[in-house]
Amino acid sequence: MTQKNGPVEKVIPDIVIHRLPVYLRALDLMARQGKRITSSQELGERLGISSAQIRKDLSHFGEFGKQGTGYDVEYLRDQLRRILKVDRVWPMAVVGAGDLGHALANYKGFANRGFQVVAVFDADPAKIGQRIGGLVIESMDVLTERIAELGIRIGIIAVPAEAAQDVANRLIEGGVRAILNYAPITLSVPEGVRVEYIDPVLALQSMTYYLEPNEVETVVGS
Amino acid sequence: MTQKNGPVEKVIPDIVIHRLPVYLRALDLMARQGKRITSSQELGERLGISSAQIRKDLSHFGEFGKQGTGYDVEYLRDQLRRILKVDRVWPMAVVGAGDLGHALANYKGFANRGFQVVAVFDADPAKIGQRIGGLVIESMDVLTERIAELGIRIGIIAVPAEAAQDVANRLIEGGVRAILNYAPITLSVPEGVRVEYIDPVLALQSMTYYLEPNEVETVVGS
Repeated sequence: MTQKNGPVEKVIPDIVIHRLPVYLRALDLMARQGKRITSSQELGERLGISSAQIRKDLSHFGEFGKQGTGYDVEYLRDQLRRILKVDRVWPMAVVGAGDLGHALANYKGFANRGFQVVAVFDADPAKIGQRIGGLVIESMDVLTERIAELGIRIGIIAVPAEAAQDVANRLIEGGVRAILNYAPITLSVPEGVRVEYIDPVLALQSMTYYLEPNEVETVVGS
Repeated sequence: MTQKNGPVEKVIPDIVIHRLPVYLRALDLMARQGKRITSSQELGERLGISSAQIRKDLSHFGEFGKQGTGYDVEYLRDQLRRILKVDRVWPMAVVGAGDLGHALANYKGFANRGFQVVAVFDADPAKIGQRIGGLVIESMDVLTERIAELGIRIGIIAVPAEAAQDVANRLIEGGVRAILNYAPITLSVPEGVRVEYIDPVLALQSMTYYLEPNEVETVVGS
């Protein structure tokens, strides 16, 4: 039942889609630095990805460079924005107005990258009505209807693990189809809803594997 | 020059190492739920990863289950902790005492997963000397020497993009070998230093690709 109607599209591997934002970020930076032309070699060196991989990833979407002359930085950046659908602004809801919710609501990095936080929710009556940046914290009780009203399709979960599934359910009921989950649990969601996880511990644990045990000092405490 | 001395070790793909913390998190949860036995099928269903992939990943490190009886949850969890070297507590430094630095310094999710924030640094004289949780915010001027003194090998960068490379250099000079970078730039680091990136925009942009364009509402603003 995941079949789409409409013209047959080749399915592009999810891992390729996940690399495109990395390319886009590098191209954004190059453009800001005034660089006009780049190559898969140069991109690859900056990102630690092979140039062959970059060429193969991009080839799924068309022909963006000319043999021998490389890529036009702004053109490739704009094409990637279009492909990733961030050539517009997606309104987002943040749920949870703790330290992390504050950090997200005030995050400068969303601007010009396709996203804007337009609503913040919390369950704590003491927080409801307070302001984060330009936004008034709203009650969890109105979350579902507000999401629907504002046409929000993207929700960010910044609540404790035990509350995260309930928040996800309410977001989805309101019309959210993409969730960025900071709570350290795997969410159950219906088909058609995407979830990405941000858990600093997963990233840290994949680095400690490589740290030499004899480098460990047990100076813990303050 | 990346050759290691000592016994020959098979090199395990980085992508496998990155999946182990995901398995560990699921096993942690199962153990807390009182579950004693699991299978690659059950783990796979919970995580959206094929059971064959899980068995293959684990087979790099030994034989953890018996044919037909599955995995002992606590045993496999403990083995993964040992493999990932999180059967100990790694002291960490957080650099940047803004909203995100506060969220990280107060984060409950590090406890029992191998990590503890033991020092917080900021460049702002108004913040230095203030407390976050049990820690006193220290000056960036003493960062390198304090990192060395405390034997810290892991640093978390929570400063704006333009300051991140300088912070990384100072952390590495003090002895840090693993960096979790929240600033939206790719860092230059010497060989032997690992960097993982947390950038919510990358995760968001890999989801917008899949959102239907006609679902976009342009209700932006508050």
